[in-house]
Amino acid sequence: MKISPKNKQRPIVTLLTDFGEAGGYAGSVKGVIMSLAPRARVVDITHCISPYDISSGAYVLSTYYKEFPGGTVHLAVVDPGVGAGRKPIAVKCAGHLFVAPDNGLLSFVLAGGEKYKSREITPPAGARVSGTFHGRDIFAPAAAHLANGGKFSGLGPELKTVHFIDNITPSISGNTIVGKVIHIDRFGNLITNIREESLTGKEPSRAVVRIASLTISGLSGTYSDKKTGEPVAYIGSSGYLEIGIVESDAASATKSRGGREVTVALVEKSAARGKK
Amino acid sequence: MKISPKNKQRPIVTLLTDFGEAGGYAGSVKGVIMSLAPRARVVDITHCISPYDISSGAYVLSTYYKEFPGGTVHLAVVDPGVGAGRKPIAVKCAGHLFVAPDNGLLSFVLAGGEKYKSREITPPAGARVSGTFHGRDIFAPAAAHLANGGKFSGLGPELKTVHFIDNITPSISGNTIVGKVIHIDRFGNLITNIREESLTGKEPSRAVVRIASLTISGLSGTYSDKKTGEPVAYIGSSGYLEIGIVESDAASATKSRGGREVTVALVEKSAARGKK
Amino acid sequence: MKISPKNKQRPIVTLLTDFGEAGGYAGSVKGVIMSLAPRARVVDITHCISPYDISSGAYVLSTYYKEFPGGTVHLAVVDPGVGAGRKPIAVKCAGHLFVAPDNGLLSFVLAGGEKYKSREITPPAGARVSGTFHGRDIFAPAAAHLANGGKFSGLGPELKTVHFIDNITPSISGNTIVGKVIHIDRFGNLITNIREESLTGKEPSRAVVRIASLTISGLSGTYSDKKTGEPVAYIGSSGYLEIGIVESDAASATKSRGGREVTVALVEKSAARGKK
Repeated sequence: MKISPKNKQRPIVTLLTDFGEAGGYAGSVKGVIMSLAPRARVVDITHCISPYDISSGAYVLSTYYKEFPGGTVHLAVVDPGVGAGRKPIAVKCAGHLFVAPDNGLLSFVLAGGEKYKSREITPPAGARVSGTFHGRDIFAPAAAHLANGGKFSGLGPELKTVHFIDNITPSISGNTIVGKVIHIDRFGNLITNIREESLTGKEPSRAVVRIASLTISGLSGTYSDKKTGEPVAYIGSSGYLEIGIVESDAASATKSRGGREVTVALVEKSAARGKK
Repeated sequence: MKISPKNKQRPIVTLLTDFGEAGGYAGSVKGVIMSLAPRARVVDITHCISPYDISSGAYVLSTYYKEFPGGTVHLAVVDPGVGAGRKPIAVKCAGHLFVAPDNGLLSFVLAGGEKYKSREITPPAGARVSGTFHGRDIFAPAAAHLANGGKFSGLGPELKTVHFIDNITPSISGNTIVGKVIHIDRFGNLITNIREESLTGKEPSRAVVRIASLTISGLSGTYSDKKTGEPVAYIGSSGYLEIGIVESDAASATKSRGGREVTVALVEKSAARGKK
Repeated sequence: MKISPKNKQRPIVTLLTDFGEAGGYAGSVKGVIMSLAPRARVVDITHCISPYDISSGAYVLSTYYKEFPGGTVHLAVVDPGVGAGRKPIAVKCAGHLFVAPDNGLLSFVLAGGEKYKSREITPPAGARVSGTFHGRDIFAPAAAHLANGGKFSGLGPELKTVHFIDNITPSISGNTIVGKVIHIDRFGNLITNIREESLTGKEPSRAVVRIASLTISGLSGTYSDKKTGEPVAYIGSSGYLEIGIVESDAASATKSRGGREVTVALVEKSAARGKK
């Protein structure tokens, strides 16, 4: 993959972190990138991934990266293991570039079995490397290198494989899917790890979705298929099954956090037709 | 209105949403705009409007848009009715361009009876349109179209009028104004829908402002007219009556939310003079 | 100091405020800067400094500014005294430009005794100056003036000195340092005002750090020196002593806020060696 000329002019670096909004960590990362890659446009995605929540960060990263032009550099730092043994890595996949700790943060980007190339980032000799802030000291310089059109191979030695989060795919047994909540959005909607594709050949109107004490019969196309206050299950804008409550907060109502179990009972399309 | 040459070079798109800070929704919107309008500068205003709070979003939108250069595109998404019948619209007003759902979000921008033109946004045939994320699928492409200098009329058919929030203006009866809280800022200051203009010809020092159990005599020019911990009423930086507590939080102290009633008893300027 | 040609092309203005995320204050400031300095790149650092917390704002400002290129304009507004007597100022220091209220917000930037020059910002006659929003009306135009390469001396009369926060340095008595918490980061790590330099010549492994009921023996290089859930003291990425709990929240665990006392008992390096 080559960085396109258009992006060489004004390359884009996106930022996803769990640094929070109240401090200077994100600002320091931006300063390093803008100092080293003066032509780069730095774009905040979020700095409010729950602290250390790799699963949520991995999901969110997978939802927006494809909306950016090819050649964009996506920097992601949710890094409970900073200073421990996990490797800093760069990954090339689907025409995009990623810089992140090797702790599973790219799991959903790579969940479809996409081909990728990866490198272990090796800071140059003499570089400032603190024990606690690799976002500033390792990841930002690597992102700036790529934004400047620097060689991918120049970041460090090739890695054959990267780490994945355990159990990112739901378990499917016959017509029953057991998945889990991987992210909760601002409206309290519960995003699960159950992909749209697992419902292929099934009858959406006869699916039964269960979480906590909620039972939802049938998938909807959008919120307005149900009334205010009613629970609703639907394929969200990123292709995953979501559970919401119309104009209310499903996470609070079900007291759900990331990891909460969700089951879906399905009926074959032909079987559904047969009963009509 | 024509987009000025200066803005054609580096057009500006501002973003106001209730998407929150922890997810990828705002990032997806930015990616779409930056892909479709590579020269645009995308500026975050806020993604933390309270979920579904059209009134607060409408007020906030009205406070900053005029600070930007003419020709700026202001994208605003607070959209409880996504997927239901409400129309996506674009509005041209006061030299600025707005893209939003037609649910009252432009009420305060248009509250002064400004002239405007509006169009119903009609996505091109074959465009991706999810049931739940029109910010990404409809509003962002429309904003990019305008940022690229595309024709306003190219967005879709003309609309004669747009929706307004109910009761955006206070009721005025003789020298008594009954308004309400429309927004609470970060410091707990209560911003009301009572405009500076309603006080014309009245004696500011003899106005009596009441909210909950608070009674404030006289309007101040700024916080420092009162001592720390004292309540203060003043015309805020956007031209609306505000109620605060010096270096403290009036919203907590009065347990106020949006919609809370505020009354102002006024005295004519001449009457005030007469009693001196 | 001259603004470098590179920055003249695309000058940078960073923003640190306590305006919060839910309103239009930061957006108004950005609009003013982008209107007056069309070539400027405006970079959000944070708008979530705790309301009126000058100490936290001053610390955070000191952590990121040096990461930006020389000539960057750093706008900082945490301003409980808006409308009262405090002066709006601009400061030139270490190749960077600062615009802020003169209330101690630059204390940590200038804590090392750096040479600086300062001016009292005097808005031009006829400028809009509200009683409550100097960020928009005074500080943003001054930042735009500097971003445009305008003369520092053109902002207003010279000031001989600026205000500092009281007690920004810890008290040191023999081998005992008594400092305090000046900032709490997103992870609940407690950042103190005790500088790395105060530990010169001491034995890090024999330092004893106390805060609330926690006693931590020995300084660590990074979090992973301890196990999950264990308290850890270390020199943070900005050169100050920090106290954390591995993958947990030290602020909650010790119920600490800004101002909390921290003591460090030290042992000389030679003494430590002698006992080996």
